[in-house]
Amino acid sequence: MILNRLRLIRRAASAPGCSLCISLSKQLYCSSARRTRVRDALSSLETGSSIRIQGWVRSVRSQKNNLFLHVSDGSSLQPLQVVASSDLNTRELTFGCAVDIIGSLEKSPSKKQSVELQASHVKVIGECNPVDFPFKIKERHSLEYIRQYPHLRCRTNAFSSLLRIRSEATSAIHSYFRDNGFVQIHTPIITSNDCEGAGELFQVEVKNPHFFSVPSYLTVSGQLHLEVMAGAFPAVYTFGPTFRAENSQSRRHLAEFYMVEAEISFTESLEDLLKLMEDLLKTSTEHLLSHCAEDVELFHKYVSPGHRWGCDLQTEHEKFLVKHCGDVPVFVTDYPYDLKPFYARDNQDQPQHTAAAVDLLVPIVGELCGGSLREERPELLKTRLAGAGLEETYAWYLQLREFGSVPHGGFGMGFERYLQCVLGVDNIKDTIPFARSSRSCLL
Amino acid sequence: MILNRLRLIRRAASAPGCSLCISLSKQLYCSSARRTRVRDALSSLETGSSIRIQGWVRSVRSQKNNLFLHVSDGSSLQPLQVVASSDLNTRELTFGCAVDIIGSLEKSPSKKQSVELQASHVKVIGECNPVDFPFKIKERHSLEYIRQYPHLRCRTNAFSSLLRIRSEATSAIHSYFRDNGFVQIHTPIITSNDCEGAGELFQVEVKNPHFFSVPSYLTVSGQLHLEVMAGAFPAVYTFGPTFRAENSQSRRHLAEFYMVEAEISFTESLEDLLKLMEDLLKTSTEHLLSHCAEDVELFHKYVSPGHRWGCDLQTEHEKFLVKHCGDVPVFVTDYPYDLKPFYARDNQDQPQHTAAAVDLLVPIVGELCGGSLREERPELLKTRLAGAGLEETYAWYLQLREFGSVPHGGFGMGFERYLQCVLGVDNIKDTIPFARSSRSCLL
Repeated sequence: MILNRLRLIRRAASAPGCSLCISLSKQLYCSSARRTRVRDALSSLETGSSIRIQGWVRSVRSQKNNLFLHVSDGSSLQPLQVVASSDLNTRELTFGCAVDIIGSLEKSPSKKQSVELQASHVKVIGECNPVDFPFKIKERHSLEYIRQYPHLRCRTNAFSSLLRIRSEATSAIHSYFRDNGFVQIHTPIITSNDCEGAGELFQVEVKNPHFFSVPSYLTVSGQLHLEVMAGAFPAVYTFGPTFRAENSQSRRHLAEFYMVEAEISFTESLEDLLKLMEDLLKTSTEHLLSHCAEDVELFHKYVSPGHRWGCDLQTEHEKFLVKHCGDVPVFVTDYPYDLKPFYARDNQDQPQHTAAAVDLLVPIVGELCGGSLREERPELLKTRLAGAGLEETYAWYLQLREFGSVPHGGFGMGFERYLQCVLGVDNIKDTIPFARSSRSCLL
Repeated sequence: MILNRLRLIRRAASAPGCSLCISLSKQLYCSSARRTRVRDALSSLETGSSIRIQGWVRSVRSQKNNLFLHVSDGSSLQPLQVVASSDLNTRELTFGCAVDIIGSLEKSPSKKQSVELQASHVKVIGECNPVDFPFKIKERHSLEYIRQYPHLRCRTNAFSSLLRIRSEATSAIHSYFRDNGFVQIHTPIITSNDCEGAGELFQVEVKNPHFFSVPSYLTVSGQLHLEVMAGAFPAVYTFGPTFRAENSQSRRHLAEFYMVEAEISFTESLEDLLKLMEDLLKTSTEHLLSHCAEDVELFHKYVSPGHRWGCDLQTEHEKFLVKHCGDVPVFVTDYPYDLKPFYARDNQDQPQHTAAAVDLLVPIVGELCGGSLREERPELLKTRLAGAGLEETYAWYLQLREFGSVPHGGFGMGFERYLQCVLGVDNIKDTIPFARSSRSCLL
């Protein structure tokens, strides 16, 4: 029924000329030779077949009779070796240029690769002046150096690996939650909640200051919105951008970063949350290792080989705890009640008086996750809100407990810190496509 | 190696007492009876087994000897019928309360459901005063009415269906791109780009006005950032929040909404984009129909039965086109060059002078997608930027063309409009968990 609706009609548009076909036979480029991705070519068993590859040149080596190119299209870290007659060499064939190549995929005589492309046509479709291009052939630039070029750093091996890993990790996290029956909720970015006390806020302004009629901010956490949903679903999560306007040049803080947040209803104890965090981390990391082995290896071998567990980056206490436990991730639970926000569940364990909260500390980054059971008992919540003078602001939140309240809890995980931890990346700015931090908002 | 790192250590926390076990045998609640989701119970074939259900009461019917409850936990639209001895009825057992139930799953004698739960224990864990609760038993509240309660509307059948559909549609879109080799890029929310001219911007402020050292805004599109990536990958996409500060009370505009944006490299013609849009829409919608049949049916049958194709919501031109083509989606291509932004590719088809741009118009919402090939030729782009006085601002963008430029193109699709179109929802505010629009930023 709906699929009928999707019968798409096309206005007859005048077919524009294919610029690629001007200098080469139309038949060759547009009909017979299907475009193949480098990743597929590398794993292809159909040697002898004619294929067409498009990508960027990673290296050029010219011998007497033969020209050797390494061509990458971003589908994999490993490039495809292209062999052509040296007649096909031109001035434009430089490191970084874009090429369109037709040839025959053959078994490679070298042990470095299983296949290579014996090219009959090599065409430069986008030139790249090697003098002006900030990355140089055969040089291994530092992450710090390439960070100066946010519009170009994806063209380096290291950062293109990072982006593939980040994409795969994102996918692994979504799959984990979906496979476990969580409903994904897009919690809002702009919010009128301001007093979780989680840090300095960004305010949202428009020319018309009364646009929203209330002061509005960029979210610091989707937790309270997820708690709304915990009153209607067994398990929900969100995975999106969150913000802190903190004036910090730290290697583990960003002004805009991604958080994975989950909330489960009908929890019995904090143990449910610990299990969920542990399972999420293990499942996602296993997925990442099996799907991005080559890219992850690049980081472990070349980009951050000096990074080992327990290195000197954390605050003293976190460092002590992680070290004390043998340089492995460690859960810390049951924090003093007064140190935790109004929503944390009272353990009612006088005289200690703790809240059912948990942090997960890991080597390299320190705090990776933080969570708690939430106070589901209306009377206790009401008293706490009143004590903090927040009764009116959070009247809506209290109502969640007055209508069919259930025991629930959740946690948040910093996604970039997760990547730092798994890859051993020193500076969090190197884990996100476009980093925003104090005094930096390029592009 | 990494998995060893993930050996998580737990601080021994004192086990808190299980509040559920106070009034019932500990063995029953915590050991023998595993918690089952309603969705799983409904499709279970293991009748005769003892299960435990937790959820919210959707209806209460008391007869002489028996008490009949409908219990939903948000895992499915259909509730589970619970049959108990009328002795188990209590004052607290009302519409909207949260319950914890143990019983035996049995074949149902009624044709309305295949199984029912014969309960031995029924416990109210969260009360719900039916006088204060804004939703009433057996009443079908309008979407407009429930919209007044953003913190509670997920507890209605209609909105909980919407949220499950939205989650599934999100997942379908991610799967589509992943299956087709796209790398997901988290394009930034805060950006210093301001002049795409796509509409009124939100500005981001902090107490320290020099936080970023440049004026910064909430993104209106991730396109330019995706184009950065189109210089290193064959295909990329983003799916995240975008913003317009437009003072509109329209039924198809939000101040914060989600966009799916894709960019493909090495395109040959606009036809590549049309195919991609069509394939994405068909694949996602097929997935949605097969995975959320029950929830989608609720909308088609009850929530928006009056909505049919070609109804009177669009601007006159869009309406005419969609109607003219038989009330089906329609692509419109090759717009006048001067009407399109600087990045649109020049078709060089004087005297018409069009750009290689496309819009997809659909019934109910009008424009669903917009895309174009991008100007990849450095000289043409330079001339156009200079003409618009944007040469300096977009120096970085021009550099993308100066270093290994490739023909590429992409499109954006409004995700809430897609949901409006598929479900026939009149007001876009009813397609997003927490709607933000002019004069509305609740919670």
